[in-house]
Amino acid sequence: MKAITVKKAGGPEQLQLAEVAIPKPGVGEILIQTKAAAINRTDILGRQGKVAYLPSDILGVEVAGVVVDSNQSDFAEGDFVMGLVNGGGYAEYVVMPAQRAMKIPESLSFAEAAAIPEVFLTAYQTLFWIGQLKRKETVLIHAAASGVGTAAIQLAKQLTDATVIVTAGSERKLEVAKQLGADVLINYHDEDFDQRVLQATKGQGVDLILDFIGASYWQKNLKSIKTGGRWVLIGILGGQFVEQVDLFQLMSKCIQLTGTLLTPRSDQYKAELTHDFIQQVFPYFEDQRIKPLIDTKFSLAEVAAAHIRMEDNQNIGKIILTVAD
Amino acid sequence: MKAITVKKAGGPEQLQLAEVAIPKPGVGEILIQTKAAAINRTDILGRQGKVAYLPSDILGVEVAGVVVDSNQSDFAEGDFVMGLVNGGGYAEYVVMPAQRAMKIPESLSFAEAAAIPEVFLTAYQTLFWIGQLKRKETVLIHAAASGVGTAAIQLAKQLTDATVIVTAGSERKLEVAKQLGADVLINYHDEDFDQRVLQATKGQGVDLILDFIGASYWQKNLKSIKTGGRWVLIGILGGQFVEQVDLFQLMSKCIQLTGTLLTPRSDQYKAELTHDFIQQVFPYFEDQRIKPLIDTKFSLAEVAAAHIRMEDNQNIGKIILTVAD
Repeated sequence: MKAITVKKAGGPEQLQLAEVAIPKPGVGEILIQTKAAAINRTDILGRQGKVAYLPSDILGVEVAGVVVDSNQSDFAEGDFVMGLVNGGGYAEYVVMPAQRAMKIPESLSFAEAAAIPEVFLTAYQTLFWIGQLKRKETVLIHAAASGVGTAAIQLAKQLTDATVIVTAGSERKLEVAKQLGADVLINYHDEDFDQRVLQATKGQGVDLILDFIGASYWQKNLKSIKTGGRWVLIGILGGQFVEQVDLFQLMSKCIQLTGTLLTPRSDQYKAELTHDFIQQVFPYFEDQRIKPLIDTKFSLAEVAAAHIRMEDNQNIGKIILTVAD
Repeated sequence: MKAITVKKAGGPEQLQLAEVAIPKPGVGEILIQTKAAAINRTDILGRQGKVAYLPSDILGVEVAGVVVDSNQSDFAEGDFVMGLVNGGGYAEYVVMPAQRAMKIPESLSFAEAAAIPEVFLTAYQTLFWIGQLKRKETVLIHAAASGVGTAAIQLAKQLTDATVIVTAGSERKLEVAKQLGADVLINYHDEDFDQRVLQATKGQGVDLILDFIGASYWQKNLKSIKTGGRWVLIGILGGQFVEQVDLFQLMSKCIQLTGTLLTPRSDQYKAELTHDFIQQVFPYFEDQRIKPLIDTKFSLAEVAAAHIRMEDNQNIGKIILTVAD
């Protein structure tokens, strides 16, 4: 089968279209003919050799496709499924733990379905499992036009009617956020987001921050959060190292700061999250109150261009690899 | 009445025994004749002018005594009660929000009762409300011989049968921790606690850290915690500022770090915590499976010596002011 592998750790030029054997499903796994796969930042870290937790030589952690070997699972051959995989997604066939597979709602295409698992599960996990977002609370979502950002805006708005405050770097991105339901739009080039957040919350700050930025927003996030607020750290686009952290600020504001990544979580955790997500969120996909947002589509052979687009932060929503028609 | 006030922000020599008016209970408050009060670190910060959240000129945030004006509350005059007060504890009379008052179990003296509210409520809140300690998990408790430390060891052991790993700076302190139920004893002068923690947990790390130390233990705490672990920051005895915090470590280990202080929490929060604490923990006081630990007793006039003893970290358990017989 055709698959994308990495010659050696490095830039997008290291990605190559190779001919490799079709994988065999192990215990508890199903084999899927991939129709579409999505690009994630973890793939770029994997390509650069910065993360080592993927057992596969082939990149890609989420796909949508057709079950071709159900391997005594609850699925039938021919079922349309989407879900997270332990690497191997940029390929014509991939194995997936059956516990993580989700039947694709009829309202969605394969490309749309491939755009769901990583960002919607991450947004759902961080907003509700970790961030404990409650009805009518206020949430600050950075990188509003990113995959997780666009998913989080919709989930926060639809599931809890939260007040959603977002930051992004262009009017084009903020317009998309507004259409998805964001209430307060902040262009971080034009103004200090912490000032606008305090204005919008009558000086109280927000109940929850979804932070993809890290170091460069540290001080402003501290100012933007309410006493007793929750702060979920899921990205370090603005830097990995904070020069000096004042622990007494965390104590006196009673802040809960949780770092998280979805990919390295255990199979059991992902299975429970998947199950809860299907129960709580699928009705919204079925009647299209919530929609995955697709930025662009590339073929397997164009994968380098797809990586470059993400590394340049050009995308609004998800970048999809179309693997088969 | 006699009360301890602060001449001006500074050292223990600024404490003075003054003659002031007996306070009047406001709406929802009761008046208590103080029998015993306890010394807390927040009193020392208050004396030094480093915290400004106490509305009273008189130091002291916890007392035990007799209700002398029940002010239409659920209490009767003559009831023996203990509880947190918004300052004013180092005095012959003090007002207390009725929602925070707890009837003293018959097994306890006034001095023992005064030793309970701050440290046991803090230990209970941090272990269970914030730290979510579950049955048979493993917890690392620093400053094992401190007031909160001695309370936390007992609560973790009795309520959840946790494996309790403790650190302290002397064999005398570790011996006390052992008698209270600690399983693994680490003298931080003799060994690196993170190495011992990893040994004792088969390389996994602990589920929960109660951290009174802060900056100087930052790196070792990061190494000692399990992936997905909880870390509750309730003190900065080892420094307030951490240089070069690596946010990716918090993400890749999926760490939940929560800063907290009990004193600045809202009245409603303290009332709910008090209610839950009475339900869950009082049975253990009544049959003496859990006991408050008293270090020393001083009279009101000897308050400077009491502060010095705490500032020098000499105490094992609580330092009590005996206000009346």
